[in-house]
Amino acid sequence: METKVSGPTKEVIISYDRPTCIIGERINPTGKKKLQEALKAGDLSVVKKEALEQVAAGATILDCNVNTQGVDDVKMLPEAIKMIQDVVDIPLCIDSPNAAALEAGLKVYKGKPLVNSISGEKAKQERILPLIKHYGAAVVGLAQDDNGIPKTAERRVEITKRIVEACEKAGVPREDLIIDVMAYAIGAEPKAAKDVLNALRQIRLELGLNMTMGASNISFGMPDRMILNNAWIAMVIEAGGTALIADAAKVMPAVLSADLVLGRDRFARKYLEGYRKRTAELPKK
Amino acid sequence: METKVSGPTKEVIISYDRPTCIIGERINPTGKKKLQEALKAGDLSVVKKEALEQVAAGATILDCNVNTQGVDDVKMLPEAIKMIQDVVDIPLCIDSPNAAALEAGLKVYKGKPLVNSISGEKAKQERILPLIKHYGAAVVGLAQDDNGIPKTAERRVEITKRIVEACEKAGVPREDLIIDVMAYAIGAEPKAAKDVLNALRQIRLELGLNMTMGASNISFGMPDRMILNNAWIAMVIEAGGTALIADAAKVMPAVLSADLVLGRDRFARKYLEGYRKRTAELPKK
Repeated sequence: METKVSGPTKEVIISYDRPTCIIGERINPTGKKKLQEALKAGDLSVVKKEALEQVAAGATILDCNVNTQGVDDVKMLPEAIKMIQDVVDIPLCIDSPNAAALEAGLKVYKGKPLVNSISGEKAKQERILPLIKHYGAAVVGLAQDDNGIPKTAERRVEITKRIVEACEKAGVPREDLIIDVMAYAIGAEPKAAKDVLNALRQIRLELGLNMTMGASNISFGMPDRMILNNAWIAMVIEAGGTALIADAAKVMPAVLSADLVLGRDRFARKYLEGYRKRTAELPKK
Repeated sequence: METKVSGPTKEVIISYDRPTCIIGERINPTGKKKLQEALKAGDLSVVKKEALEQVAAGATILDCNVNTQGVDDVKMLPEAIKMIQDVVDIPLCIDSPNAAALEAGLKVYKGKPLVNSISGEKAKQERILPLIKHYGAAVVGLAQDDNGIPKTAERRVEITKRIVEACEKAGVPREDLIIDVMAYAIGAEPKAAKDVLNALRQIRLELGLNMTMGASNISFGMPDRMILNNAWIAMVIEAGGTALIADAAKVMPAVLSADLVLGRDRFARKYLEGYRKRTAELPKK
């Protein structure tokens, strides 16, 4: 299945046989003091810097989240979107827990954005799906409901099916839905990762949907997170994760390797380009 | 399915839900000038050094191959085996293209070894399977036949089924067979890797066999082989590769990560131990 999103002039197609899409996660104030302070002061320079850096590192979509205490999301989100779309051309993922802010963002957005998010919760669907339909956006559907994050693969698949139904009932076609299968720290629940892989594979085979997740949640609390994340990312991509939410600079080598191995990188062009970029950035000996 | 092999006193059990087994590949003169010269001079000190280093790096089985021009395999292989079994306790994989050398090795081996290898070729099966049966060994079965390495997953599965039949006819139970699915360089054939993954998954689900492969063949000819191998190793382990032929020192972080993610490493004990070992070896800043 192909999910199409776009920026002012650039279209990105997400699908299992194409190179993995990376949703750059850096424009999000959660846990980022400096970005929080800048946003509170109405200063978008940090957002701009992150946007340019993530694109340079290989992000194919940029998450845009300015939600933090002391910031008026409804006013700030469209401002951030306008600024980012002035400097970069790739599609954005408009990200807010606030439906009014999402709508304000959708109003100014040029192209077809991704919106983060709906879930299995009815109330959220009812607020947000009409906006997705009206503005012709694509949407992230979190595989969780009023009972929280599911503990098994089966529950994830079940909630996903309900989200697909709700979307189609609201006139949003399933190719405009990207499921977030909700991966969490392996330290919290040792068999959780395997459940996520099983859910990815099952949803891909049964429903053919595109899928996303935070690519580094898994390693929270463990040492040498990069090595652990890299193994995880390879498995996730093979199983069906087509759009990973991540710091593009950190995950690029693992993603390029996985795409090459899976036959999505003709003549290893992207892999070799990534290698040249990495080695060019190394200090000369 | 559980494949059991053993050294003088140590047993190793290979199965999909246990930590991945690493068959240390360094005792093999192919492409190793220094080892070739030593073996020609009847000097086993390089073999000894490699054996100790591979065990220290985390190998769970050691491949033992002394086949090189100018060396009498039938005389040298049992000598090497006796020497290695004097210094390390883990099981060996007795590796030679020469049936007489395999038999000479089997005669002196203490425990239950793995033998490399049979394949889909009838002649090879007829020479070697009676030895496997007689000495109660386990055996590697290469998923290739007189027509060479198969081009598709289906052919690999087909040949595997024929090897299982030949084994059982010869009185070798299928749990004593480990299939080498034959991975080769991605540069040579871009879709080969995906075929290998499909073969692993299919053989695991249909036959439940343990499987092996050279874990780094895939990246031959590419730059930054380690990054590419790590992504590949994660996918291979998830798909069903339970015993990887590799340089233990190089693949350990990727293997420990994959095992942790797949729920085979309780309390992350092996992952954390591997991390401490790696960081202890780093030069102090």
